[in-house]
Amino acid sequence: MAVLVTAAVEALIPVASLIGIAFAALQWYVVSKVPVRLHHEDDDDDNAGLGGGKAMGRRSSSEVEEEDDQEEDGGAATITAESRCAEIQRAISVGATSFLLTEYRYLAIFTTAFAAVIFLFLGSVHRFSLHPDEPCAHHNPSLLTCRPATAGAAFTAAAFLLGALTSVLSGYLGMRVATFANARAALEARRGVGPAFAVAFRSGAAMGFTLASSALLVLYAAVNLFGLYYGEDWAGLYEAVTGYGLGGSSVALFGRVGGGIYTKAADVGADLVGKVERNIPEDDPRNPAVIADNVGDNVGDIAGMGSDLFGSYAESTCAALFVASISSFGEDRNFTAMMYPLLVSAAGILVCAVTTVVATDVVKVKDEAAVGPALKRQILISTVLMTGAIAGVTFLALPRQFTLFDFGNVKVVKNWHLFICVSSGLWAGLVIGYVTEYYTSNAYGPVKAVARSCRTGAATNVIFGLAVGYKSVIIPILAIAAAIYAAFRLAAMYGIALAALGMLSTIATGLTIDAYGPISDNAGGIAEMAGLRDRVGGAGLAGPVRRVRGPRPGVRAVDVLGPRVFVGLLVGAMLPYWFSAMTMRSVGSAALRMVEEVRRQFDEIPGLAEGRVAPDYATCVRISTDASLRKMMAPGALVMLSPLVVGTLFGVETLAGLLAGALVSGVQVAISASNSGGAWDNAKKYIEAGASEEARLLGPKGSEAHKAAVIGDTIGDPLKDTSGPSLNILIKLMAVESLVFAPFFAAHGGIIFDHL
Amino acid sequence: MAVLVTAAVEALIPVASLIGIAFAALQWYVVSKVPVRLHHEDDDDDNAGLGGGKAMGRRSSSEVEEEDDQEEDGGAATITAESRCAEIQRAISVGATSFLLTEYRYLAIFTTAFAAVIFLFLGSVHRFSLHPDEPCAHHNPSLLTCRPATAGAAFTAAAFLLGALTSVLSGYLGMRVATFANARAALEARRGVGPAFAVAFRSGAAMGFTLASSALLVLYAAVNLFGLYYGEDWAGLYEAVTGYGLGGSSVALFGRVGGGIYTKAADVGADLVGKVERNIPEDDPRNPAVIADNVGDNVGDIAGMGSDLFGSYAESTCAALFVASISSFGEDRNFTAMMYPLLVSAAGILVCAVTTVVATDVVKVKDEAAVGPALKRQILISTVLMTGAIAGVTFLALPRQFTLFDFGNVKVVKNWHLFICVSSGLWAGLVIGYVTEYYTSNAYGPVKAVARSCRTGAATNVIFGLAVGYKSVIIPILAIAAAIYAAFRLAAMYGIALAALGMLSTIATGLTIDAYGPISDNAGGIAEMAGLRDRVGGAGLAGPVRRVRGPRPGVRAVDVLGPRVFVGLLVGAMLPYWFSAMTMRSVGSAALRMVEEVRRQFDEIPGLAEGRVAPDYATCVRISTDASLRKMMAPGALVMLSPLVVGTLFGVETLAGLLAGALVSGVQVAISASNSGGAWDNAKKYIEAGASEEARLLGPKGSEAHKAAVIGDTIGDPLKDTSGPSLNILIKLMAVESLVFAPFFAAHGGIIFDHL
Repeated sequence: MAVLVTAAVEALIPVASLIGIAFAALQWYVVSKVPVRLHHEDDDDDNAGLGGGKAMGRRSSSEVEEEDDQEEDGGAATITAESRCAEIQRAISVGATSFLLTEYRYLAIFTTAFAAVIFLFLGSVHRFSLHPDEPCAHHNPSLLTCRPATAGAAFTAAAFLLGALTSVLSGYLGMRVATFANARAALEARRGVGPAFAVAFRSGAAMGFTLASSALLVLYAAVNLFGLYYGEDWAGLYEAVTGYGLGGSSVALFGRVGGGIYTKAADVGADLVGKVERNIPEDDPRNPAVIADNVGDNVGDIAGMGSDLFGSYAESTCAALFVASISSFGEDRNFTAMMYPLLVSAAGILVCAVTTVVATDVVKVKDEAAVGPALKRQILISTVLMTGAIAGVTFLALPRQFTLFDFGNVKVVKNWHLFICVSSGLWAGLVIGYVTEYYTSNAYGPVKAVARSCRTGAATNVIFGLAVGYKSVIIPILAIAAAIYAAFRLAAMYGIALAALGMLSTIATGLTIDAYGPISDNAGGIAEMAGLRDRVGGAGLAGPVRRVRGPRPGVRAVDVLGPRVFVGLLVGAMLPYWFSAMTMRSVGSAALRMVEEVRRQFDEIPGLAEGRVAPDYATCVRISTDASLRKMMAPGALVMLSPLVVGTLFGVETLAGLLAGALVSGVQVAISASNSGGAWDNAKKYIEAGASEEARLLGPKGSEAHKAAVIGDTIGDPLKDTSGPSLNILIKLMAVESLVFAPFFAAHGGIIFDHL
Repeated sequence: MAVLVTAAVEALIPVASLIGIAFAALQWYVVSKVPVRLHHEDDDDDNAGLGGGKAMGRRSSSEVEEEDDQEEDGGAATITAESRCAEIQRAISVGATSFLLTEYRYLAIFTTAFAAVIFLFLGSVHRFSLHPDEPCAHHNPSLLTCRPATAGAAFTAAAFLLGALTSVLSGYLGMRVATFANARAALEARRGVGPAFAVAFRSGAAMGFTLASSALLVLYAAVNLFGLYYGEDWAGLYEAVTGYGLGGSSVALFGRVGGGIYTKAADVGADLVGKVERNIPEDDPRNPAVIADNVGDNVGDIAGMGSDLFGSYAESTCAALFVASISSFGEDRNFTAMMYPLLVSAAGILVCAVTTVVATDVVKVKDEAAVGPALKRQILISTVLMTGAIAGVTFLALPRQFTLFDFGNVKVVKNWHLFICVSSGLWAGLVIGYVTEYYTSNAYGPVKAVARSCRTGAATNVIFGLAVGYKSVIIPILAIAAAIYAAFRLAAMYGIALAALGMLSTIATGLTIDAYGPISDNAGGIAEMAGLRDRVGGAGLAGPVRRVRGPRPGVRAVDVLGPRVFVGLLVGAMLPYWFSAMTMRSVGSAALRMVEEVRRQFDEIPGLAEGRVAPDYATCVRISTDASLRKMMAPGALVMLSPLVVGTLFGVETLAGLLAGALVSGVQVAISASNSGGAWDNAKKYIEAGASEEARLLGPKGSEAHKAAVIGDTIGDPLKDTSGPSLNILIKLMAVESLVFAPFFAAHGGIIFDHL
């Protein structure tokens, strides 16, 4: 029998969550010690916002250079730099906040409407009856009092709203942390790579631990709260809780798509005119799109990613809980075992805290070359420690042997089987991370080959980059296939759910690293805008490790016998293309408008090119905002409606095919798009850095090869930051939505096929 | 009961084939009346071949201009033009022949070895016993004498070799017809669009009808010949005949991949230096890669496509025959009904002949604007007529009602059900063709939007083009899904096989149009090289309709319950990416070498840029040849070995998943790659043609927007002409290979899973 008693479980989950939150607060506190102050308070505050261009515009670039010369004087110069960074930070923060609040207003309407849909669909299964009308447990009629479907519908809708709210908060908090940290990292970079790395990394950790811990805590609270009503009806309880995953993922989808369009429209637009046509550096304050670009990084890469990872985590935890509830755990009423997925996540938070301390206090980063290895080391350490933690939790919390119900068959499972399931997901994640690193880091052959192909222009660069992206799917897919097979073999669907959870168990460290990238990128941008370029260089701020989050192997096994399933499979495999077509086109057309606006400003505003007059940042911000809010609707609707329409009209079999098709096709598109984009990005950086003989021959900035590399990088932008990451959400969102609506589809689905 | 007696069926199939061959000969005869003669026979013949550059080099471009001025004189000038075209034609023909013969030498080794593998694998099912050891019919033990597996193995291997040989001949013949026609079309273009169109179109028809008819004739002969041994054992007979489809598809794969790498390496290399760097026109004789480029068009687009369509046709006919044989047809021994798939194809040849006469003799093409509509009209006419023909064949040849065996269940099928099955495939093909036209023709919005996006450079052009390709999969996939569903619903697997056959039933017209494109493109190239540019212009030679052959819905329904199938699905969906990574990279690296060689020649050969000295064409030909022969091995091996390895190691379930995954993912990649490439190609042509106000603003040639368009076109080259078409072969080749090896996998497959 299990060693841990219920009380200990009750304690461990909230305690670990609180430790995580305290840890995040500690990191935040350390970051906040870096002073960023506005010194000339006489500035008109309003200007620091979207209209901040005026304030910043007062410094022409020649002034900046003069000041740079004086800065050895110390004191006054430091104050000026701090003040400038504070201004820029404020402009970015105000812009990002204003965009997010607008976006969330749209999302509030959507989530309310969709919660009503959930209630209506699920409530109609038994005609909104308040009386339970079938036996409760899934496999053998038990003595439990089962809850009516209408109650389930209400609780599912409530869980959906809760998930959506938590996801919104995750994104918003992440953005606040990041904008708070950007300027500080820029200022610290003057003192060297080590301090800059520490600030960016600690900020990432503050975001990572806040999100991971609060996700766990809210879920734990919801389970306990809902449990007051559901009592021992675990299956009913967890059916309702899946709404939490759906809510989290829905908001994540819109956050990713909207933020992704925002940031890439600005980024592509800024680069096309600034770097390619005007030959001014990235993040130059003369570029009218530069503030929009930096706002975009915070709302897309940070807020979108925060919601995304929260959604993944919520979705896979809910799936594991749900499968556990219809397995024997629910019938034996073993509370500890039922909570096993949450225990794994709780252990993950503690493991990640220990891992983080290694980077911040044990092995400190001293120079730029040490940044990449330090981040990789974090992933490896957390994976190794987590393997031990999983073993501990598994053997302490689970009975040595128990039975699972696998589609009606009884399957005997030993606790070490589950250890292997969780670990296989965890290690598959590590393999995927390392393969991604190999194909997208400019330390290895593939990116170097892409860089070399720039010798013959943009076309060969694009061809090679596409090939690298395609090739990079091979090993990840084989790793996922092996993990799925092992997990299913050992513990059927519960095994697969646990493998998905294992892949996300070190989410706090994963988020830390994911947030480190944009934070340090943005710090570099602020340094450039504040005229700190010379002393900051790219030191410690360049070349963040790109992590592609592996697709979660979270689809339910499906029965593809017969044309209904096959047709679903075929159409499902098409959805990622439809979705990508919409997002790519949105970025493309918004970028076109951005380019025209930036060109117009350079042409029509006298003195802008020379840096004497400030550009009109606000118009560029408005273009990105409008485009992203308008263009996120259609792809969002495609994803949210496809399972509903297919399930209702064509039934469960076709829906199962649709999910499997979207998964197996979407995974490939997502990985290859992200990695092609990463390879182009780093091939460009490789040429710019000029760190090897070969790179110097290709460069410097402005050479024909570099121009070709910039074109590749620009093409990769929407692939790696809009389409790619959104596709991961598409896959899991459609799966969890189908799970939520399953009772409705089972009762009323398949209208069309039934009449043919 | 059916109306047609066996004797009539016996007659119709060979008679239709012979009519088709006679029709092809007639077209060829009309084309051959255009005189193309070498007048100064004193030229060293050897130079006309790969070293032909020397002969052509004697005319400097200033001489060409002088001669152009004199050409109103008539006589002498005509002779000069004819003679020049003849020279160039000879050089291309010799180059193409020499490449194909080398390629076929490699293929001879491969097919012999693979035939041995077939014999060994299939023969081992019953340990090479010559005694039949199980009852013969699939569903009820009958009185037939069943044949031993060893005989099946031998006949399958023989059918494989026959299919491979026919495929080789198809490709070779196509190439001969095309090179024969190119120069003639170029010369006729001097007389206007109408005559040029007629020559190119008749040449395409000569190729189309030769291939379609001989494919049918050889298959019919093989069935009758094998029947002498198999007698009434239809199942055994058609099991062996599937080897014919495998042989055809295997050669097609290598032909497409090898030819595709050859042609695109030369094309990309020629364009990158010629058009982008040196600003000389396409097909300018000063470009050292120009002969390789034109050879490539003939070995890739023509020979590869010929083998490809033959392979498709053979594969889908064999699949239909095989499924028919294990249905009730075989047990009732209804010869006419068993031959139904061949009857449909025979009717298709007659329908296409009538359709062709409309274009050549009824509604003649008078100007350039009429070319596109004329080709589209051909597709529509053949589809409408074919629908009637299918109805005729169906009601004459089939009993009104009969039974099929559907995985053990008996299903009653009426003859009009089969009419719908065949027609649904036929019309789905039409829909796919029209959608492709919409997304890739510069007459419609999508390509215009892609062209407009060139205003802001190559990056937005690529982003928009990718989006168009992604979007273009939506309707084709829905059409295919509808056809599959309807066909399966009406007649189970036999219905799906018939739908695939219906899609290919107008293959002769399809091939005519597909061949028309490269023939007229090449005619334009020859005109350019021979200095006929001014009078030819693009008249009648530009803007061939791009046809994307729809993926054949030919996969067997699979059972995806359980992890074995799902793992297969996931890995299968990855294979198209792996395959594309290899082919894209091969084209990219061969193009890099080509670019360097072309640059070297321009830099090192004095007088080349001015046209005073001929370039060294032979080295460029060698680069393409080496690259394509060396680089076709790995992708070919991937496709041929995947089903064998997966079937043997992991068993039938995983293999079924692999096939379904490769199909549903590969179809999307193939369609989107082909259509992105087509959109870029025509966006470039749109800008070059300058036929609208908008196009004139973007152009002319050499403008920044045009340069961006050329980059997109170059990126699209390997997507649309190497990866895309090869993926269609990948899908069907893996399916037919699995069918051929099914007895072996059933007996011995799944070694690894059985031991886990």
